[in-house]
Amino acid sequence: MSKHLTKRAEDYSKWYNELVVKADLAENSAVRGCMVIKPYGFAIWENMQKELDRMFKETGHQNAYFPLFVPKSLFEAEEKNAEGFAKECAVVTHYRLQNDPDNEGKLRVDPEAKLEEELVVRPTSEAIIWNTYKGWIQSHRDLPLLVNQWANVVRWEMRTRLFLRTAEFLWQEGHTAHATKAEAIAEARQMQEVYATFAEEFMAMPVVKGAKSESERFAGADDTLTIEALMQDGKALQAGTSHFLGQNFAKAFDVKYTSKEGKQEYVWATSWGVSTRLIGGLIMTHSDDAGLVLPPKLAPIQVVIVPIYKGQEQLNAISEKVAIIVQDLRAKGISVKFDDRDTFRPGAKFAEYELKGVPVRIAMGNRDLENGTVEVARRDTFEKQTVSRDEVVEIVANLLEEIQENIYTKALAFRNDHITEVNTFEEFKDVIENKGGFVAAHWDGTMETEDKIKELTKATIRCIPNDAKEEEGTCVLTGKPSRKRVLFAKAY
Amino acid sequence: MSKHLTKRAEDYSKWYNELVVKADLAENSAVRGCMVIKPYGFAIWENMQKELDRMFKETGHQNAYFPLFVPKSLFEAEEKNAEGFAKECAVVTHYRLQNDPDNEGKLRVDPEAKLEEELVVRPTSEAIIWNTYKGWIQSHRDLPLLVNQWANVVRWEMRTRLFLRTAEFLWQEGHTAHATKAEAIAEARQMQEVYATFAEEFMAMPVVKGAKSESERFAGADDTLTIEALMQDGKALQAGTSHFLGQNFAKAFDVKYTSKEGKQEYVWATSWGVSTRLIGGLIMTHSDDAGLVLPPKLAPIQVVIVPIYKGQEQLNAISEKVAIIVQDLRAKGISVKFDDRDTFRPGAKFAEYELKGVPVRIAMGNRDLENGTVEVARRDTFEKQTVSRDEVVEIVANLLEEIQENIYTKALAFRNDHITEVNTFEEFKDVIENKGGFVAAHWDGTMETEDKIKELTKATIRCIPNDAKEEEGTCVLTGKPSRKRVLFAKAY
Repeated sequence: MSKHLTKRAEDYSKWYNELVVKADLAENSAVRGCMVIKPYGFAIWENMQKELDRMFKETGHQNAYFPLFVPKSLFEAEEKNAEGFAKECAVVTHYRLQNDPDNEGKLRVDPEAKLEEELVVRPTSEAIIWNTYKGWIQSHRDLPLLVNQWANVVRWEMRTRLFLRTAEFLWQEGHTAHATKAEAIAEARQMQEVYATFAEEFMAMPVVKGAKSESERFAGADDTLTIEALMQDGKALQAGTSHFLGQNFAKAFDVKYTSKEGKQEYVWATSWGVSTRLIGGLIMTHSDDAGLVLPPKLAPIQVVIVPIYKGQEQLNAISEKVAIIVQDLRAKGISVKFDDRDTFRPGAKFAEYELKGVPVRIAMGNRDLENGTVEVARRDTFEKQTVSRDEVVEIVANLLEEIQENIYTKALAFRNDHITEVNTFEEFKDVIENKGGFVAAHWDGTMETEDKIKELTKATIRCIPNDAKEEEGTCVLTGKPSRKRVLFAKAY
Repeated sequence: MSKHLTKRAEDYSKWYNELVVKADLAENSAVRGCMVIKPYGFAIWENMQKELDRMFKETGHQNAYFPLFVPKSLFEAEEKNAEGFAKECAVVTHYRLQNDPDNEGKLRVDPEAKLEEELVVRPTSEAIIWNTYKGWIQSHRDLPLLVNQWANVVRWEMRTRLFLRTAEFLWQEGHTAHATKAEAIAEARQMQEVYATFAEEFMAMPVVKGAKSESERFAGADDTLTIEALMQDGKALQAGTSHFLGQNFAKAFDVKYTSKEGKQEYVWATSWGVSTRLIGGLIMTHSDDAGLVLPPKLAPIQVVIVPIYKGQEQLNAISEKVAIIVQDLRAKGISVKFDDRDTFRPGAKFAEYELKGVPVRIAMGNRDLENGTVEVARRDTFEKQTVSRDEVVEIVANLLEEIQENIYTKALAFRNDHITEVNTFEEFKDVIENKGGFVAAHWDGTMETEDKIKELTKATIRCIPNDAKEEEGTCVLTGKPSRKRVLFAKAY
């Protein structure tokens, strides 16, 4: 594959697809719609997992693991969930292959090995988990039940894109049960907050916190909270959702508890998840025409050191000095790679680490050796400075923090520039079509209007922001009264 | 469920099944053969993963993720692997359910949504991974390729037991590619060593390192290295395997590299894995009639503190002192739980933590408060001592190390007592039937003899130990010449 990367302005979508592959993050597999997450891409996911898992545990959650398969009949228990999820899914119907007698060396399904009941590969786990919770919850003493699962799920998507929409993806799904409605609502809000904090502090990706409209709600939820991010091409990305499930699953699976007062009550539920889709969001928030730009807090390699040398003797002298820097950086918890491969030239290495979004690059050549200096380059702005070797560790540590802050600030400015208040449908269409981003508009609260707007503009309601002000207004399409602006956008 | 736990001497198998459920480790699910791993059981797995993952990374491996599904045709590429694995497996044939018009509220498979090629839910990932590696490996510079995957796999087992043999289980599978045969063999040996170190140092479970006989080898491997543990009932447990795959997969998937000399060569491969089965091994190595005994290095809770009090005032006074102990233990990296629930009596709590195998229990009552003491009890020997509060942190820290060592020493003594050298088939049968454990016997090296011995005694060759001495002897069954003793045992 050519090293050339399509420019964003030329074809954003092509730029994205190329970048994911060229930066060694992921690739398509032999299985339609399923991706292979390559080591460099998976290392980003591992860093995300580590922070999220810590945040889940700090808020009292424990991990568990539930079966990959959901018997078909369990889906039928919760009607909306079945409507929403049990349709486009991978279905296991048989449990054996056999040698095909008509076709030597080939395998075929053994017709004798048909399952009595088909098994669905989980598209989400509410059904199997609530069927299990029935046995775990008897008393108020068993509540709250705060469980998370890291898992793979499968949704048979027709159009797939690496990270953003794949048939199989990795995610976490929290499933909690509570004694009261208020507690469950507080849990759903807490997890929206956790996701927003993670997105902004670790991914450096600003998000709008809000609630979904009814038609965009999770199947089976009474309320869906969301965090919505904005990509560089002006399209929104739903980055994480947290659902208040009411008593829908408790009733579908008959999960009751005995209250302190001795009464039998249905429990209240939430579920919440983020997935490998976040990696797509990370890429489209910060990266540029030279390749990835990774936030230092999630970068698999925070600092790369490239020696510039002629001959083994110079390399040895440089390596000796580099060893000290590497040691000191690691002592500060900074991940660093010394790339002394002799099979690539420095220029090729520079391009490779730019493409891979390593936040800081240190180069050391013969002159640096003489002067006691190194060259430090930051990926986000391409700025370079020559610094004393004695100060490099301190400078790099500060620089990593500065980069984390800078890319967040830049993304925030872009996002804020792309929230446009409109009051007429002409303006609405103009902004959606020409400027992109979020449009803050009054809406009459009906599904019909939402559908009509989607039909006319391809924009959907991304959310009703948590902090939306009460404001008298009229629906941008129908002129009916409205009291809040909601955010519309085209979305991934 | 009753709190009573069947005694090991009464019915070992029943004891195991009850313990897994009563100690909240796992339970059977609504899906035949698939388990739910409950939070307490999953926390053990997380601790195992953390240490193993660290060891894999320290030996140069990176994690990645490959698809859950393997197209049927990829299995056909490697004949032995297909024989061994593609048979008893979950097969996805359709990608959609629809509402059944003849059966309101029910779902059925949409006959229109039949896959062109069936997808097998991975029983192991060699086929999909080697199909991917073809694109990753061109040059000697791409080697070695050292990749690991943490994943779920499915094998359609007819008889399942929680952790030991389940249709779906969690595992890690390493898949590496090398330029030379010697490197690949060294890798397979290194990973056997990593597994043995993990088993002995973290699980406190002694293992025998050895090679499998041909008939017990992994399908598609040239050599299978194993670590074999011995359970308390005298049956062996294969705890981890590391395979030298030769060039079998490279040839099946046409994976070649250009050598330094410019020649096209097939690469050499290994794969290696351990699974949630290890949790079964952990249980059956150390636990007793009172419940689990967990090695401190893997216990989710290392220390539990139980207050013994009358009234809120006493509890407050105790809690104040406990807070300091908790803080000091945590500062030493020791996980500690203060169980101040007022819904259970101290006796019930003691029984619960014994059942759950918490290594150290601290109790503090009113008299302790007056005397500045606490009671410290160890789970492995049930010994108790009253110690000064000032010394408790130091004492507990040492005690955790002592317990880790003690349970290993105990298991090692048991295992060593259960390796019996026999020279006649009468002795062989007698030991297998009455004493159990490993039998070290001469064997003529043929599959026929191995099969015959299995048929007569149910014992199989667990391994040819790495450290087996050269020794002239005669096969215990056929009297033919043999130069090494191999280990036989009945096995899980």
